[in-house]
Amino acid sequence: MTTYSLLILPGDGIGPEVMAEVRKVIGWFEQNRGLSFDVSEDLVGGAAYDKHGVPLSDATMARAQSVDAVLLGAVGGPKYDNLDFSVKPERGLLRLRKEMDLFANLRPAQCFDALADFSSLKRDVVAGLDILIVRELTSGVYFGEPRGIHADDNNPENEGGRVGINTQRYTSGEIRRVARAAFELARKRGNRVCSMEKANVMESGILWREEVQWVHDNEYPDVELSHMYADNGAMQLVRNPRQFDVIVTDNLFGDLLSDAAAMLTGSLGMLPSASLGAPMANGRPKAMYEPVHGSAPDITGQGKANPIACILSFAMALRYSYDLGAEADRLERAVEKVLADGVRTADLMGPQGGTPVSTSEMGDKIVAAL
Amino acid sequence: MTTYSLLILPGDGIGPEVMAEVRKVIGWFEQNRGLSFDVSEDLVGGAAYDKHGVPLSDATMARAQSVDAVLLGAVGGPKYDNLDFSVKPERGLLRLRKEMDLFANLRPAQCFDALADFSSLKRDVVAGLDILIVRELTSGVYFGEPRGIHADDNNPENEGGRVGINTQRYTSGEIRRVARAAFELARKRGNRVCSMEKANVMESGILWREEVQWVHDNEYPDVELSHMYADNGAMQLVRNPRQFDVIVTDNLFGDLLSDAAAMLTGSLGMLPSASLGAPMANGRPKAMYEPVHGSAPDITGQGKANPIACILSFAMALRYSYDLGAEADRLERAVEKVLADGVRTADLMGPQGGTPVSTSEMGDKIVAAL
Ligand SMILES: CC(C)[C@H](C(=O)O)[C@@H](O)C(=O)O
Ligand SMILES: CC(C)[C@H](C(=O)O)[C@@H](O)C(=O)O
Repeated sequence: MTTYSLLILPGDGIGPEVMAEVRKVIGWFEQNRGLSFDVSEDLVGGAAYDKHGVPLSDATMARAQSVDAVLLGAVGGPKYDNLDFSVKPERGLLRLRKEMDLFANLRPAQCFDALADFSSLKRDVVAGLDILIVRELTSGVYFGEPRGIHADDNNPENEGGRVGINTQRYTSGEIRRVARAAFELARKRGNRVCSMEKANVMESGILWREEVQWVHDNEYPDVELSHMYADNGAMQLVRNPRQFDVIVTDNLFGDLLSDAAAMLTGSLGMLPSASLGAPMANGRPKAMYEPVHGSAPDITGQGKANPIACILSFAMALRYSYDLGAEADRLERAVEKVLADGVRTADLMGPQGGTPVSTSEMGDKIVAAL
Repeated sequence: MTTYSLLILPGDGIGPEVMAEVRKVIGWFEQNRGLSFDVSEDLVGGAAYDKHGVPLSDATMARAQSVDAVLLGAVGGPKYDNLDFSVKPERGLLRLRKEMDLFANLRPAQCFDALADFSSLKRDVVAGLDILIVRELTSGVYFGEPRGIHADDNNPENEGGRVGINTQRYTSGEIRRVARAAFELARKRGNRVCSMEKANVMESGILWREEVQWVHDNEYPDVELSHMYADNGAMQLVRNPRQFDVIVTDNLFGDLLSDAAAMLTGSLGMLPSASLGAPMANGRPKAMYEPVHGSAPDITGQGKANPIACILSFAMALRYSYDLGAEADRLERAVEKVLADGVRTADLMGPQGGTPVSTSEMGDKIVAAL
C-alpha cells in the first residue's frame, strides 16, 4: 500500500487551529478510505524563531525536501513585527518556496454560490466566478540581487542619506516554465490564458510578454492567449472578473492581483493555494499547500477561525501530490454540502444567518459530511 | 492682470476630442470671469512620434518646463504597440514626469452619487467614497538602473538564454518629499495617511516605511499614520475602500492600486489626476494634469468619449497651479449639476437612463451650467 508523506507546518496565529481540523479530515480518509498518510509536524515562522532563532531551521528545510507534500498554516504576527528582516517569519516561507523551487503558485479565486452575498461586489458580477491565478513564486523582485539598504554618502541632495534597492530579474527560462504550467492548467479549464506585466514601462515585462508568447506559439497554439498591462488587470478584476480564465503573472504582480481576486469572492477564509515545483522521482511535483488567508492574530485562539481554506488546501494536495483526484472531489463536495446546509464560522455569518459554529465544529461537520 | 500659461498636449486616441471640450471651458472663464490664459498646444505620444520620430521632442519638453501648467490628454494606441521600447508613446509621458520632476501624483477616487450604481461594487460599499492616492511618480522601478534585456550566455540552465532586469531604487529623500506631500494633503482632508509597501519582502519597502514614519514623527505628528502591505492594500480597497483617507505609495504599487481604486468608483471617465513637482519661482508647483482614463482607441472619433475627467483635470489646474480654488469649485459644481440633471455620455448610460449626449454636447452642457 502506498503511504503518502505529508509535512505539516502550522506556523503562527490561527495556523495551529485550522491545522487541527485538517488532522481530523486526514484521520477520516485513513479510517474510511483505506489511505495511509505518514504525517509529521514541524515549526515555521515566528514559532520556529521562538525555538531556534530562525524562521525555518535547516533540519525542517531538509524534511520539507524529502516529503511528498508540505501543508503550511500561516506565518507572522505583531510579536515578530520588529525582528530583523533576515529572521522575520516571512523569510521561513520564502526559503521554503525558493529552496524547493516552487515556481508555480496556483491561486484559485472561486465564488461559492452560498456565499456570493459576502462579496463587496454585486452578486451578478461575481456569482459563479472561477478564475485561477498562476503566480511565479521563486524569482522576480522578491529574490533578485543586488538588494538592501545602504548609505548614499556622496549624494548631498539625498536628505536622509540612504538608498533602498531591490532587483526585478527574470530569465527567459523562469518565465517559460511558469507559462507552461499556466497553459497546461488552462487546457483542463476554459483554455484561455491572460498574461499580465508592465511591458510598457519595464524591460523585464517585455521579456515576460515575449517568452509567454513564444511558449504559446511553439507549444500551446491551441490555447487562447492575451496580454494585459497589470494596472489594467487590477482594473478589470474589479470591473468584470469573469472575463478571465487563467491569469499568469510575475511574483510581485501576482501577490497583489491574487489578493485582490481573492477578496472579490468575499470569502477569504475559503481559499486554498498550491505551490508547485519540478517533478520528483515519483513523477509528482514538489509541492506546498497553504490557505490564502494570513495568521489573523486578531482572532487567534478564540475558535473563530475558518478551517475551510486549509482543508481545501489539503484537497489540492490530494489532487496534485497524491494523484487522488476522486478523493479531492469528495472532500470538496463535503465542504459544499456543509455550506449549503448553512453551517457558518464567524467570518461567514451574514444577514441571512445560518448555524454559527466554531473552528472545531466546522471541522466536525465536514468530517460528518464526508 | 495675471496671465496663466497652459500647455495643452492632447496626445492620441480620444485625447484631442476631450481636449476640445476643455477649450470651451477655458473660453468661458476668459469671457465671464475676466481670466486670461495663454494657451499653447503641442504633440506628445504617438502623435509626436508620427511627426518627429520621438514621443516627445526636445522643443516640446522645453515648452513644458516653461509654463505654469501642462494639461495632457492620453497617449498610446494599437498603431504604436510594436514600436521599439525607446520610442513608445509612454516614453513621452515618462520623460515629462521625470524631467519636470513631478514626484507627487494625486489620484482622487471619488464616487459621484449620481453614478454610484455604475460601480461593480455594492452601492453601500462605495457611496460617498472619497479617497486620494498619492503615488510617487519619478523614481522606483520605472526609472531605476540597471535595466534592460540581455543575453545570459554563461547559464546553460536558462532555456531561452536571456535575462530581463529592472531596478527598484528609492532614496530616503525621494520618499520623504512625497510623504510630505501626502501629509500636507491629508491635513486638508480627513487627516489620515496610510502608507503601502512590501516591507515584509523588499528592503526598499523597509526604507519606505521608515522614512514615511520619520517624516510623520518629526513633522506631522498630528496626522494619523498607518502602514499596510500593498497586497493587503489591494484587498482592503476591494473590501472596504472607505476606510482610507489618503494613501501614499510608490510608483509601481501606485500604478496598480490607483487603477483599482479608480475602477471602484465605476466612472473612470470622471476621474482627473494631478502630478506635482517642486515650487517654481512663482511659488506654485511644477504641474501636469491628466485624466486617469487612457486613449481609448476603440471609441476614438465617434463622439462617445466622456470629457469630464479632462475637464476636472483642468479644475485641478485652477486649484493647484493658478491658485483659483473658487473657480475650481465653480467648475466642479457645474459638472455635478450636469450629472444631477441626468446628462450622460455613453459610458455613463445605465439602466436608469438619462439624456444621452455626445462628447461635444457634454462640453456644451457644462459650459451652460457654469
Ligand atoms: C507573507 C508574504 C511574504 C507573502 C508574499 O508576499 O508572497 C504573502 O503575501 C503571500 O502572498 O503568500
Ligand atoms: C501609460 C503608462 C506609462 C502609465 C504608467 O504606468 O504610469 C499609466 O498606466 C499611468 O498610470 O499613468
